[in-house]
Amino acid sequence: MTLSNVSIDGARLLADLYKLRGFGTYKSGVHRPTYSPVDMQSREWIADRMRDAGLVPEIDGIGNIIGRGEGDGPRVLLGSHSDTQPQAGWLDGALGVIYGLEVARAVGRGVDVVSWADEEGHWASFPGSRSFIGDFSDADIDVSRNRYENLSLREGLAVAGLAGRPMARVEPGRYRCYIEAHIEQGDELDSTGRKIGVVSSIVAIWQYKIIFTGVQNHAGTTRMAIRRDAGLAAAKLAVAIDKRFPEICAARSVWTVGRITLDPGAGSIIPGGAEMVFQFRDVDMDVLRRMESALEALVAEANTGPCEVVLTNVSRSTPSLMADDLQAALARAAERHAPGLWQTMPSGAGHDAQFLARVMPAAMLFVPSIGGVSHHWTEDTSDADIVLGCQVMASAVAEILGS
Amino acid sequence: MTLSNVSIDGARLLADLYKLRGFGTYKSGVHRPTYSPVDMQSREWIADRMRDAGLVPEIDGIGNIIGRGEGDGPRVLLGSHSDTQPQAGWLDGALGVIYGLEVARAVGRGVDVVSWADEEGHWASFPGSRSFIGDFSDADIDVSRNRYENLSLREGLAVAGLAGRPMARVEPGRYRCYIEAHIEQGDELDSTGRKIGVVSSIVAIWQYKIIFTGVQNHAGTTRMAIRRDAGLAAAKLAVAIDKRFPEICAARSVWTVGRITLDPGAGSIIPGGAEMVFQFRDVDMDVLRRMESALEALVAEANTGPCEVVLTNVSRSTPSLMADDLQAALARAAERHAPGLWQTMPSGAGHDAQFLARVMPAAMLFVPSIGGVSHHWTEDTSDADIVLGCQVMASAVAEILGS
Repeated sequence: MTLSNVSIDGARLLADLYKLRGFGTYKSGVHRPTYSPVDMQSREWIADRMRDAGLVPEIDGIGNIIGRGEGDGPRVLLGSHSDTQPQAGWLDGALGVIYGLEVARAVGRGVDVVSWADEEGHWASFPGSRSFIGDFSDADIDVSRNRYENLSLREGLAVAGLAGRPMARVEPGRYRCYIEAHIEQGDELDSTGRKIGVVSSIVAIWQYKIIFTGVQNHAGTTRMAIRRDAGLAAAKLAVAIDKRFPEICAARSVWTVGRITLDPGAGSIIPGGAEMVFQFRDVDMDVLRRMESALEALVAEANTGPCEVVLTNVSRSTPSLMADDLQAALARAAERHAPGLWQTMPSGAGHDAQFLARVMPAAMLFVPSIGGVSHHWTEDTSDADIVLGCQVMASAVAEILGS
Repeated sequence: MTLSNVSIDGARLLADLYKLRGFGTYKSGVHRPTYSPVDMQSREWIADRMRDAGLVPEIDGIGNIIGRGEGDGPRVLLGSHSDTQPQAGWLDGALGVIYGLEVARAVGRGVDVVSWADEEGHWASFPGSRSFIGDFSDADIDVSRNRYENLSLREGLAVAGLAGRPMARVEPGRYRCYIEAHIEQGDELDSTGRKIGVVSSIVAIWQYKIIFTGVQNHAGTTRMAIRRDAGLAAAKLAVAIDKRFPEICAARSVWTVGRITLDPGAGSIIPGGAEMVFQFRDVDMDVLRRMESALEALVAEANTGPCEVVLTNVSRSTPSLMADDLQAALARAAERHAPGLWQTMPSGAGHDAQFLARVMPAAMLFVPSIGGVSHHWTEDTSDADIVLGCQVMASAVAEILGS
């Protein structure tokens, strides 16, 4: 095994991150929705930086930026995404893209760099990385629409000047592996003082829509005894989940009622309908199935009440395991540069790496999020932690390429 | 005591109700928002019907239609409202206005008839009857806005052609009392087979806004232990109210969480904020105060959890007692025309009668609502029950005028 003495240039890394932060600055964060004018400007800038680093950049028909190095032999693909959630943080995604660029510059050979389009799902679920692995078709483009505006993905691509460009696809045999760096988005590293998270797996997300149907009626004239209040039924289920799930979940399971809407939602009207969006996440299929069974039992129990409750699964992903040998390489590099200050951990968020893992060995590296803040403009990581994380990645990549 | 043998004309009554239903027909109900073109057309039609009945109609500057009879001596004021909730029932309000018209025709003297503007609160809280008793000023008009559209009340009155008209005010000494007939809007009469409800009092409504503040964060990366989920806090309070209130309420108390909104309300984001609209109603001030204390205690308890919970009272009305002698007159007439098939009961809904009760003795009469349906286009009452209710009212009015 070769442990290279490759060194990154921390000042150069930070300068590029600060420069990218200037595209769509919002307070101390960034507002850079996918295919917006400022996002497209940032993509051209990233492509220019790739060119400066000796890579040949391509912005493909879905907006992925792929910078390919010259030369033969299996290569390492590094990257993340450069678009952001609305009014969100400056490092979520950007960090992994600029790490890739800096590692390509530092290592000097064998590295391709990528920024996947729309990881944050403004238009579709991971269209960039899924297109690259052949899992996002022309038909998918046709049915996708912007989450916030009344615009189809086809229209969005046209406005962004991407219509008609070819879609980049993974070339068989070109890559040894994919490695993505990202902010943790949780508080585990920050609260323990650790500097590096080596990701063991990416959680699966199982999401559900739950529809409650009661009877809408007058809030003054309808006796309590005969009410069929759909809003109350929804509140009761949320509380029942909160009580039951801790009894059957695993240590790192999470679950969230992110949305409750009452129909009609007026002070003097008993809600006749309610809708709830519920999801849970875990890395273990057995745990996921146990959580789904518990949910089904709670919904069945809710149905013994005055309202009808209908549970519909919206999506069920599978946990994505990161490659053991890549985890080991990242762990060795972490122990070298931050001895005792790293840990393995699951990723509670979805990432493009889970799709790349379907076609090549994949791994992820986390750096601390101050206070665990994510998807908010106050998200941040210290400069020292940013530089350290990139150095760990560079050393691991050098080892992987050299071995 | 004189029990007049006055008889109403059931066919004429029903014909007028059916005709009024034609203004803004929606399925088997009516959509006739206050000051809409179809509402103004219906007001002109009602004014014409008053004129045909020998009354002198006036549509005043807030849209009230008042038909005054000639002659001296204390009179009885009868009426309700002719505007409707959106896509709502055909009898809610219209019944009481056309009852007034028919009783004026049947009794022949001593009756004024009124249709109060905007009882359903499209623009303000009871502006018509409150203007009539001097409780709705020019300044109130200036600050009122449409609930559904971005239009001020001042603009709405101008569009309706009412700008500049004088406001009708109650003339001291003109009225012996006010009596309003209305559909029950609940299921008590319908479920017991009774035909007439003599209203004892109109409930007070105490309404609150409850704001929950937690921390918005990522639904995948934020461990359960550190979450401050404002949506869950709101659901817990709704369930706690549902558990606690039956222990402290009175037999006819009602309470409703009509609105819950989560911020931002997305599947993958822990809600950082939530807002709840909560109200309760009762006819007894002691009970109302007890319910408010219980609510305050539950909010204090909620504040021991991870979110901040702030309770704000939005409105606190007082219960309105109906006049004993008028109740007795209505009860005698009910027993005469529907022996054993009437009862006294509170009104769980607010009505213009609660404002008239501030300046003169007031009473209300209920007829059955089929299935207790209200504020929905399927609201209905049988023709026989409609005719019976009007006959009871006519007999009571004749007795009151003759005594």
